[in-house]
Amino acid sequence: MPRYNVPDVVVRRLPLYLQTLNHIAETGQKVVSSTELGRWIGVSSAQIRKDLSYFGAFGKQRLGYEVDYLRSELKRILQLDQDWHVLIVGAGALGHALVNYRAFEEQHFVIEGVLDHDEAKIGQAIGTLVVQPMSCMAQTVKERHVEIAILAVPARAAQSVADQLIAAGVGSILCYAPITLSVPDDVHVAYIDPVTTLQTMTYYL
Amino acid sequence: MPRYNVPDVVVRRLPLYLQTLNHIAETGQKVVSSTELGRWIGVSSAQIRKDLSYFGAFGKQRLGYEVDYLRSELKRILQLDQDWHVLIVGAGALGHALVNYRAFEEQHFVIEGVLDHDEAKIGQAIGTLVVQPMSCMAQTVKERHVEIAILAVPARAAQSVADQLIAAGVGSILCYAPITLSVPDDVHVAYIDPVTTLQTMTYYL
Repeated sequence: MPRYNVPDVVVRRLPLYLQTLNHIAETGQKVVSSTELGRWIGVSSAQIRKDLSYFGAFGKQRLGYEVDYLRSELKRILQLDQDWHVLIVGAGALGHALVNYRAFEEQHFVIEGVLDHDEAKIGQAIGTLVVQPMSCMAQTVKERHVEIAILAVPARAAQSVADQLIAAGVGSILCYAPITLSVPDDVHVAYIDPVTTLQTMTYYL
Repeated sequence: MPRYNVPDVVVRRLPLYLQTLNHIAETGQKVVSSTELGRWIGVSSAQIRKDLSYFGAFGKQRLGYEVDYLRSELKRILQLDQDWHVLIVGAGALGHALVNYRAFEEQHFVIEGVLDHDEAKIGQAIGTLVVQPMSCMAQTVKERHVEIAILAVPARAAQSVADQLIAAGVGSILCYAPITLSVPDDVHVAYIDPVTTLQTMTYYL
């Protein structure tokens, strides 16, 4: 699979395809056309066929896609056929919401720990986890095989925490702080920022 | 300005351009080339020139873009030269984090209220706001001129709350629930779902 030449924008659509196929599978439907899939997601059938063609030939002319087969292929491509180990840094309101978000575990993202630097928060229980001090980071990353960290700290702390995570061996960071992190080329960062999203929405208002 | 024929993917990049220009302006720099801007954001200079060309001619050949001028033009295009009135529905951990997120107000998104259906939460103070019952929705939307709602409710409640918001006159919804909402064509919905973002990241791991 030529992972290197697939545009990021295509990769970002794959989880939507997978989620939509999961929906469709729940209804008992076995085959779906690119037109129908496109209607669900809001992209053209041509776009869907083009996106999927990066990864192989999954559909049959005039018949469409076998739902179960395409689901399992998308899971394989996205490497979602295994558990991923996640560390959350920051045990404020956002950290609480993230630890308690059930969809992570349902989708094979296992929260292995939650850290904070605030003495008042360390030792607090959130769900089945207990907030640990930042000094536990390296050990937790190593022992729990953490591949992904979620940054739920204020912007002013984010770069320093990211540096520590990378030094501890974390290769992927999901950053909620409204800042652009400086990271080595081999570290993958994604951002979630509601302000940026709202700033896109006002264009349409 | 031909708002209708600009691809969504271009619109989604505009806030990143604006945020980067804000950064650059803070350093005192007056002019920026598309190459430099592209390096900050991680897109090619050609992409930046193409994106901006949808909205007019902002740069000068060989000179680049005047930072302050391009900032004010992007603010105008994104309609960020005014305050927007926002209602948050859901006063759980996520709702708390959102109400307390200072970047909203700094970027002219004014949180006008926070609602919940849970008797135990109604009346609680979050920052300077007090959690109100769902029955206050229509009145708050009308009196505070709410244009945008943020849905921080569980997936099972999201569609019903969205229906109520739309009936109350809200035209834009930012949905944190992991569900695809059914809405009329003239209502704009954006989604923030960390699971979808993580599912994109695992592709690169």
